[in-house]
Amino acid sequence: MSRLRDIGEDALIERLVKGFSREGLLAGPGDDCAVVDPGRGRLRLLKTDAIVERIHFRSDTVPTQIGWKAAARVLSDFAAMGGRPEHLLVTLALPGTTEVVWAEALYRGIRRCLESHGGTLAGGETSSVPDGAPAVISVAGEGSVARGKWVSRSGGKPGDVVAVTGRLGGSIRGRHLRFVPRLEEGEWLAAHGASAMMDLSDGLAKDLPRLAKASQCGFAIEEAAVPRNRGCGIEEALGDGEDYELLVTVPRRRWASLLKAWPSSMAPLTAIGELCESGGELDGGWEHFTGSQA
Amino acid sequence: MSRLRDIGEDALIERLVKGFSREGLLAGPGDDCAVVDPGRGRLRLLKTDAIVERIHFRSDTVPTQIGWKAAARVLSDFAAMGGRPEHLLVTLALPGTTEVVWAEALYRGIRRCLESHGGTLAGGETSSVPDGAPAVISVAGEGSVARGKWVSRSGGKPGDVVAVTGRLGGSIRGRHLRFVPRLEEGEWLAAHGASAMMDLSDGLAKDLPRLAKASQCGFAIEEAAVPRNRGCGIEEALGDGEDYELLVTVPRRRWASLLKAWPSSMAPLTAIGELCESGGELDGGWEHFTGSQA
Repeated sequence: MSRLRDIGEDALIERLVKGFSREGLLAGPGDDCAVVDPGRGRLRLLKTDAIVERIHFRSDTVPTQIGWKAAARVLSDFAAMGGRPEHLLVTLALPGTTEVVWAEALYRGIRRCLESHGGTLAGGETSSVPDGAPAVISVAGEGSVARGKWVSRSGGKPGDVVAVTGRLGGSIRGRHLRFVPRLEEGEWLAAHGASAMMDLSDGLAKDLPRLAKASQCGFAIEEAAVPRNRGCGIEEALGDGEDYELLVTVPRRRWASLLKAWPSSMAPLTAIGELCESGGELDGGWEHFTGSQA
Repeated sequence: MSRLRDIGEDALIERLVKGFSREGLLAGPGDDCAVVDPGRGRLRLLKTDAIVERIHFRSDTVPTQIGWKAAARVLSDFAAMGGRPEHLLVTLALPGTTEVVWAEALYRGIRRCLESHGGTLAGGETSSVPDGAPAVISVAGEGSVARGKWVSRSGGKPGDVVAVTGRLGGSIRGRHLRFVPRLEEGEWLAAHGASAMMDLSDGLAKDLPRLAKASQCGFAIEEAAVPRNRGCGIEEALGDGEDYELLVTVPRRRWASLLKAWPSSMAPLTAIGELCESGGELDGGWEHFTGSQA
């Protein structure tokens, strides 16, 4: 009998969503967000995400940072579509032994994130888990994106430049708890001709093949060009994950003018390779159910 | 240091959401759903919910029933506002040891519920929990309700008739896994002058005081009038919880004509008491963090 850890997250999702109607969805399960057309005005983005104690944060992690992370991960997915956050819903599944001040601090972290980056807390749910069970914090969000300006993972073409915002690697040393969702950068890239985009949550080695596959392309990267955080080798930059930077592709003919127009107030944008007809391989990245660096 | 189990869910939510902006929300944290005005057309409803292994279902519960329950609980909240489901997002937090067929069956249960009652699966997220930790299934949903027709918990007035759909009590014997969300009934009641409404998830003894408090009223019920499921005494009907029936208030002058017009195809509607200026007390109902019948 095959178990979740035997098949990996991508194959699991494919199997789970088989048979469901996708009526009315411009993008559905498998992209960073679902995209819904309400008929007029901006398109609606829908996203859900969860972080789990002992997987995504430690039991002694400062709770405001846990709250920030839970909210910022969803905002990062809106950024990856070129959108903005609107309403968030928070589900806490916590043991009854949790201190009230811990939960309050977690919510303060969520509030700080929304005050910094936009979005309104619309509701929530608290549920108990058995004593000793890990805390689970699930955040669902609704956002919006300008009609005709949303960017999926699947729009890349052979020859497109592959680029990333910011620097990669070493997130575990603290940045995974206080990263800045790249909302401005995402909206700007969507407005300036990005062909495909996603956020880097499982590491470039895992996520670039996903984007390439969704775009029915291969890829080639120049490892030396990958911008790394201080103290990180190429292995960490490719495999650590939780960078929450944007991975973006841009048609080659637009790249030079886009880079020239890139606002200096935003995180740096660096070309690291290109999409090609086929091929491409990278080792590393986070595999959810085996809980290991693949 | 006070813990979640010491203060109860309602007090916890009040403390958590303090300080958050409620800009643009017609209803926010504390009602069955958040209500958002998109400017024109139908209003948007937002809701999130979670069920937890060993709390809301057993480890040996049939997974299609778990999926049905996870989805139907959210649909029941849309019903309680007089609305309809549109898009659902599903978050699974499961140990890597979970069998793939178990997760597939869970999703089949979700699909059956949506095929029966409306709503599209828009996306999801799967996350691992440490081996041995309980499964958590969180479902967030977006629905809609006709402008001017949504019903909150807070619109009840002294003298209003208090009524319930269906029969109460004994849910644990199986109905909590296969209940029918009262969407038709909710929409009909909203269109025919209901003043306040909520769904019964924690038991009448817990939920009626909530509705009365939100409406700044007291209440009086005639225990003998409470419609009970076979084999249930009044204690079970008041205290078992997980009925997922609608609790509704109706202005006294409208009650007789409303009851006369009530379609026979819908679950029975039964008057059980009234709202009054103050007072009212009921023992029982489910308290989340103490995990006990309060």
